[in-house]
Amino acid sequence: MTTNDNKLIAKTYRSLQQQICKQLETADGKAAFTTDHWEKEIGEGDTMVLQDGDAIEKAAVNFSAVSGTVSDTMRKALHIEEGDSYFATGISSIIHPKNPHAPITHMNVRYFQLGSGKAWFGGGIDLTPHYVNKKEAAWFHRELKKVCDRFDENYYPNYKKWADDYFFLPHRDETRGIGGIFFDHQDGSDEKFAQLLAFTGALAEAYPSIYTELLNKNRNRLFSEKEKQWQHLRRGRYVEFNLLYDRGTKFGLESGGRVESIFLSMPPLASWAYHFQPEKNSPEEETQRLLKKDIDWLNA
Amino acid sequence: MTTNDNKLIAKTYRSLQQQICKQLETADGKAAFTTDHWEKEIGEGDTMVLQDGDAIEKAAVNFSAVSGTVSDTMRKALHIEEGDSYFATGISSIIHPKNPHAPITHMNVRYFQLGSGKAWFGGGIDLTPHYVNKKEAAWFHRELKKVCDRFDENYYPNYKKWADDYFFLPHRDETRGIGGIFFDHQDGSDEKFAQLLAFTGALAEAYPSIYTELLNKNRNRLFSEKEKQWQHLRRGRYVEFNLLYDRGTKFGLESGGRVESIFLSMPPLASWAYHFQPEKNSPEEETQRLLKKDIDWLNA
Repeated sequence: MTTNDNKLIAKTYRSLQQQICKQLETADGKAAFTTDHWEKEIGEGDTMVLQDGDAIEKAAVNFSAVSGTVSDTMRKALHIEEGDSYFATGISSIIHPKNPHAPITHMNVRYFQLGSGKAWFGGGIDLTPHYVNKKEAAWFHRELKKVCDRFDENYYPNYKKWADDYFFLPHRDETRGIGGIFFDHQDGSDEKFAQLLAFTGALAEAYPSIYTELLNKNRNRLFSEKEKQWQHLRRGRYVEFNLLYDRGTKFGLESGGRVESIFLSMPPLASWAYHFQPEKNSPEEETQRLLKKDIDWLNA
Repeated sequence: MTTNDNKLIAKTYRSLQQQICKQLETADGKAAFTTDHWEKEIGEGDTMVLQDGDAIEKAAVNFSAVSGTVSDTMRKALHIEEGDSYFATGISSIIHPKNPHAPITHMNVRYFQLGSGKAWFGGGIDLTPHYVNKKEAAWFHRELKKVCDRFDENYYPNYKKWADDYFFLPHRDETRGIGGIFFDHQDGSDEKFAQLLAFTGALAEAYPSIYTELLNKNRNRLFSEKEKQWQHLRRGRYVEFNLLYDRGTKFGLESGGRVESIFLSMPPLASWAYHFQPEKNSPEEETQRLLKKDIDWLNA
């Protein structure tokens, strides 16, 4: 790997960021993304945010390319064995819709390279419906499987399981949502490099189309004040996951990244209620029952 | 130290919990506390919550007495050197007022004992105004100093500094509020035991009176939608502190405590806005400027 390769990956991801934002703007139909370009000692990035749209309450698409020395705490947070210099680039995105019947989604693709030459890719796409709709969940997982299968038929089953394990709140004994795919430390050395760059690119490309479909299905559905409150409670769980467990947040804070960009995943409004118990046989209770690992969503 | 002593401390703290709740109920004048008694493998506790009062949006007063074996992660989180069995008891409380001109407050007193016989006290009281009022901040610190000085004139200066360092969000480069006092690992072996039990008791006793004063000064002040939004943003920072840095949260999750009780400190409603910048010379900007360490609040 040479420095030129790093530039190529960063350029690829940056152009995918533009594409995602363009598609999400079209989908929303009202609001536009604003772009903040930032440069810090460790590198640079573009933070693109759409707020208060017609259907989207907040969408964030981050691109960054940073480098530096792996600190002790970074090594621990990222499960890196050797201390070394590093280069990292990636896109991360999150979408909080206005309508509680539309889901939250999250996508991340990233490339990490150590000075030693060791390199890897990571990433994933996952869905957090405020109300789980089994049909939509099955469709979402089948779409992800299609992208995966174009590259390797083992990807979907392996990465689906990984997402179940990763997007999990042990203290709540519940998954963040209906999962999706997640992977990390996928060997990106010479042989595998092209395939994984193409795979992460395909995921970033599929992401806005998949979300637009789910958004359009639900954006105009009527909702009650009670359903809005449930949305805020579910967003509270999202905050818990991001601050307690998310690797991207940990890496960002640890590496001295731009705080406003790291916290972009935070919802506009979230709530916590003491010992909230959904009514028996309510859609809220049904959703809570489905926030479990190892559900075969493809055939749900 | 014998098991009897542990029972005595737990009994003292439990009765202080009752006293705090009674005073806060009187102060609010409308809502009453509900009590959830819980028992788990590691011990038991009482979680007392007041919601949607006249002036108080949410007040929580937790008591617990737990014991078990110090796990590796607990040892790290709590800076315990030796692995051992432990007994821990304490009260923790938080109050989120309705009016953004009234402050958030937090109090904690706790006793920790290892099987080896080593024992210590920790705790503190701190204030997080949504809008810093210098006069009220000075009064608050003078009240804390009065309680401290009854026991040891070194307590206030030492514990005030400790609070500045502890209630700090490094990623935001701001303190959580105007601080107060914080202390941990204060030797609670035979000689010092009685004094520290009395000191932590005095803090728990002073807490509701001090807060009532500040609440009554501000509960009926008019506020705008903009000020309410600022309150939600400041609560967002509160969430960040509690999930990223708070020792009580870490200890609770790590030791397998009751999740609903651990997350009681969470605000009813919190928000995040991308790159929010207060208007120049606004009260919001003035508050942000005062969220710094080492301010001599006694003479502010």
